[in-house]
Amino acid sequence: MAEQSTTPLVGVIMGSASDMPVMEACTAQLDEFGVPYELVIASAHRNPAKVHEWASTAASRGMRVIIAAAGKAAHLGGVVAAFTPLPVVGVPIKTSDLGGMDSLLSMVQMPSGVPVACVAINGAKNAAIFATQIIGAGDPAYLQKISDFKAAMAEA
Amino acid sequence: MAEQSTTPLVGVIMGSASDMPVMEACTAQLDEFGVPYELVIASAHRNPAKVHEWASTAASRGMRVIIAAAGKAAHLGGVVAAFTPLPVVGVPIKTSDLGGMDSLLSMVQMPSGVPVACVAINGAKNAAIFATQIIGAGDPAYLQKISDFKAAMAEA
Amino acid sequence: MAEQSTTPLVGVIMGSASDMPVMEACTAQLDEFGVPYELVIASAHRNPAKVHEWASTAASRGMRVIIAAAGKAAHLGGVVAAFTPLPVVGVPIKTSDLGGMDSLLSMVQMPSGVPVACVAINGAKNAAIFATQIIGAGDPAYLQKISDFKAAMAEA
Amino acid sequence: MAEQSTTPLVGVIMGSASDMPVMEACTAQLDEFGVPYELVIASAHRNPAKVHEWASTAASRGMRVIIAAAGKAAHLGGVVAAFTPLPVVGVPIKTSDLGGMDSLLSMVQMPSGVPVACVAINGAKNAAIFATQIIGAGDPAYLQKISDFKAAMAEA
Amino acid sequence: MAEQSTTPLVGVIMGSASDMPVMEACTAQLDEFGVPYELVIASAHRNPAKVHEWASTAASRGMRVIIAAAGKAAHLGGVVAAFTPLPVVGVPIKTSDLGGMDSLLSMVQMPSGVPVACVAINGAKNAAIFATQIIGAGDPAYLQKISDFKAAMAEA
Amino acid sequence: MAEQSTTPLVGVIMGSASDMPVMEACTAQLDEFGVPYELVIASAHRNPAKVHEWASTAASRGMRVIIAAAGKAAHLGGVVAAFTPLPVVGVPIKTSDLGGMDSLLSMVQMPSGVPVACVAINGAKNAAIFATQIIGAGDPAYLQKISDFKAAMAEA
Amino acid sequence: MAEQSTTPLVGVIMGSASDMPVMEACTAQLDEFGVPYELVIASAHRNPAKVHEWASTAASRGMRVIIAAAGKAAHLGGVVAAFTPLPVVGVPIKTSDLGGMDSLLSMVQMPSGVPVACVAINGAKNAAIFATQIIGAGDPAYLQKISDFKAAMAEA
Amino acid sequence: MAEQSTTPLVGVIMGSASDMPVMEACTAQLDEFGVPYELVIASAHRNPAKVHEWASTAASRGMRVIIAAAGKAAHLGGVVAAFTPLPVVGVPIKTSDLGGMDSLLSMVQMPSGVPVACVAINGAKNAAIFATQIIGAGDPAYLQKISDFKAAMAEA
Repeated sequence: MAEQSTTPLVGVIMGSASDMPVMEACTAQLDEFGVPYELVIASAHRNPAKVHEWASTAASRGMRVIIAAAGKAAHLGGVVAAFTPLPVVGVPIKTSDLGGMDSLLSMVQMPSGVPVACVAINGAKNAAIFATQIIGAGDPAYLQKISDFKAAMAEA
Repeated sequence: MAEQSTTPLVGVIMGSASDMPVMEACTAQLDEFGVPYELVIASAHRNPAKVHEWASTAASRGMRVIIAAAGKAAHLGGVVAAFTPLPVVGVPIKTSDLGGMDSLLSMVQMPSGVPVACVAINGAKNAAIFATQIIGAGDPAYLQKISDFKAAMAEA
Repeated sequence: MAEQSTTPLVGVIMGSASDMPVMEACTAQLDEFGVPYELVIASAHRNPAKVHEWASTAASRGMRVIIAAAGKAAHLGGVVAAFTPLPVVGVPIKTSDLGGMDSLLSMVQMPSGVPVACVAINGAKNAAIFATQIIGAGDPAYLQKISDFKAAMAEA
Repeated sequence: MAEQSTTPLVGVIMGSASDMPVMEACTAQLDEFGVPYELVIASAHRNPAKVHEWASTAASRGMRVIIAAAGKAAHLGGVVAAFTPLPVVGVPIKTSDLGGMDSLLSMVQMPSGVPVACVAINGAKNAAIFATQIIGAGDPAYLQKISDFKAAMAEA
Repeated sequence: MAEQSTTPLVGVIMGSASDMPVMEACTAQLDEFGVPYELVIASAHRNPAKVHEWASTAASRGMRVIIAAAGKAAHLGGVVAAFTPLPVVGVPIKTSDLGGMDSLLSMVQMPSGVPVACVAINGAKNAAIFATQIIGAGDPAYLQKISDFKAAMAEA
Repeated sequence: MAEQSTTPLVGVIMGSASDMPVMEACTAQLDEFGVPYELVIASAHRNPAKVHEWASTAASRGMRVIIAAAGKAAHLGGVVAAFTPLPVVGVPIKTSDLGGMDSLLSMVQMPSGVPVACVAINGAKNAAIFATQIIGAGDPAYLQKISDFKAAMAEA
Repeated sequence: MAEQSTTPLVGVIMGSASDMPVMEACTAQLDEFGVPYELVIASAHRNPAKVHEWASTAASRGMRVIIAAAGKAAHLGGVVAAFTPLPVVGVPIKTSDLGGMDSLLSMVQMPSGVPVACVAINGAKNAAIFATQIIGAGDPAYLQKISDFKAAMAEA
Repeated sequence: MAEQSTTPLVGVIMGSASDMPVMEACTAQLDEFGVPYELVIASAHRNPAKVHEWASTAASRGMRVIIAAAGKAAHLGGVVAAFTPLPVVGVPIKTSDLGGMDSLLSMVQMPSGVPVACVAINGAKNAAIFATQIIGAGDPAYLQKISDFKAAMAEA
């Protein structure tokens, strides 16, 4: 059963430790769904080698989807996407000057050939849900978790 | 083998026939990857019943991911997402007045609980790649197609 | 006399309980005008069935106008408009990252055939006035209330 | 029967003759619905006296709703709203430099007390539908026209 | 001498008493320059008759320039300009949701024939300087005040 | 009489010869009003010495107001304003990428102490009207021209 | 003498061959200044290995400055900057939907530690001038070329 | 050795003392790199003569690069660039109303011929790094400092 797996299925990467308060809503939701994940903080600009190594091996280490969170000129998602065949979900982090419009456009406007699919600015929880939906696309147990989650929301 | 499947794995829905010229880049890429898909044109506002019926049954009919394209106040992705546990990839269509900023924000800024993950404005080809990556997350044959595609891009 | 009616003439729907502090200016103004209204909190994305049921029956239950308030990718107005022939007035809720520009564009840029007419970001009081004007278009008693209100404003 | 009325129920005002090509979609839709209307071209800035006279007498001449279209610093809707208790529906006209964002904000962001409810940029047809919905709020024959229109759209 | 005049040369009008804290920088600067002014609070939308009366008589009462401050759909400058041949200087007031971009576009994008010339968002002090420059264009004593002011700034 | 003056009362400066097609609407309107003007093309960045010389002597050569037109990072108005006590009216020129939003903000957002008052993007004709209003503030003959112009507009 | 060098001093990299028409103004200006340069087309996303190899060796191969041009989610400048100690000048390419605002923000809003300094949208010629200024900061011959260029501009 | 120089290599100029809290991150980083700099506060608008004198002599006094910080209609960088052949790095200062978008566009969108290369809004530290990179382009000791800095960042 997927829940008992000890292999991370989701890689959560963020560009800076300062993104962690926002991204706790992501890891909390993954925990709630029982989705094993790996968390790493690494900047595409300050430590590109670490990002490349991590992204390049994500698929072979068993991950099925990457969540990348970054702010300002948010290249992290695109850089990761350049090094893995896995789907990369972007979380644009809100910025103090432009509200996150910079982060959003830097992530979502990826050129042809290398998509990053973005959720809302600071949409950390939704990124976790979407990653679980991606796993669920190939694993009925996870799809059922989503269905249950949606049913619970409708009742709440 | 997935390619031989006659069951659509991707549902491509768009709000208006006028989105078709943009979305041909999506279906062409799905064809290139050999991903079976179903194409439907239905407006969330003008024909909601059709959208709900289609979205509600997408998972049980074998689809694994939805691509929703719409312009202006682009609710189609969110409406579909409300009716299916499958992941929904949004394609914001460029608009003649605001360049597609309206479509983008209407799609990407989904509230907590019901994500739509967006590609770029008019990013039809990338939506096809991303949908294939989602299928590939649970099916190594499709993941390999993505790896091959990326290798070919790097050489081009 | 309209004031004595026990049937709600205005349906006020909002996507989240967190919109209530803004929308209290709406209900306060409806109270001041003596316009009976019905208040419901329901998300177009998290509980679409509830929204559809409510919207589909609004006209037959005697309502004459709907006020829909929502933030971010604010689809609530459009979703309601898809299910009722009544006029739908949108209140885009201010957001913490983009100031409500996302809510505004998601509401106001409705495609051809299914209008939502928007008031200002957080324009809850004005939505109440506008809804009363709509009722007043077919009921001189309410039109008089608006005329009195305008006269009082000019004197203030 | 409302259709047989020779009294205009909708006042359509636009700031410049150059708005007419856009607004033809409005008058065409009013014609289709059989809603009698009065058309006037008058600038709030160049000919304020004409606008004031027209707006001040609209209600007493039998009109039930005003549609105001203007571009750039689009004050026409607000100026009309200052002189009538009737509901005013704004149509922000697309501009060649800012795409109509100027027109939209100038119309929709009305201050407290005097609403103008806006449809989309260049949303002339939707303004006609919305005006008819307003009339329909007090006249079942017009509400039925909207219901029929929506049913026809769903089938199309 | 101009300073000894008891006739106001500048009319300062604002749409709401809530604009006063911003506009105190305007009146303080006019005081510093010794420019007699008249201050009025009147909304173009809530009390148009008062605005029209005030604007229509400004020139004949001896005023040479109007400063109009307003926020959101800031029509006040345009409405005043429609009723006076005097130059109207606009002060777009910062708004809590869009930062004053709505106020700025509503003021500065005036259509052909009826200009309002805008200073910066919340540029109350600069409006006073500009109004004094306008008076100075026809009165060397005031032009000298500006020259002195600029010289003092350069030394500061 | 002012009209018989051979001394330019308005200085029209633009940053590039490519602004001339837009600014012809300005000089045409000045011609129509019979306002003598001086036209100069000089870039604040490419030829600052020429701009400084011209601006520094404008007042002593009899000019009463400057109109400065520029596009992109439109500093021309601000640079001129730094060198003259005369009022400077800015015309932000439309740009091919950002529609003139860059020109507008570069002109209108002047810091405290040195105002440039802006008309609309490409508002060349309105700049001429405004400059004439400034002259009219100190010269009844020109104020009358504006009154006549407004009366003619209202009749048109 | 620098002009006689056969070693490229400037590396010009662009993300796509479609950027070449814009960037010809850059290479033309470098040619005019006699600055030897190396031109490469490589996408940070489609061929990251090529970009890394090129950027990592640029300094040791004698280059002194990099010019990176890219559009949409324009990561190329940032990716290059991550791999070289050389200064990286970004040229945000105009886009058909958002006018290049996406390219600009993706380039200029670089996080702390890894700057990319941007010129204007499509500012290809200015990037060449700026790169030459950088070389001139350490080489009087090139600084003189800039001084001559500026003198010629002032005369033109 | 460059570190022992007492001649400033970098000129740091800002438009207002209120920019100093932001710019302390710039001077701190220059100190860390051991880059001698000169600091001046002077407004392009309020004290143009001081700015011109300072900028005109910067190169001959031994400076190699200028950092110019300003907010709102941020002309300082462009004005300095007009008077020196040295490269000018712009730091757009965040503004309270538009978040610094005004400062950014006023700096980065410089017209052809006179570039200012911008770092991020409030990117004071990055401006220091970039200035050091410029010096390093002609001085291996400084280039080594950047390489060391980048290596330290990657390890952190």
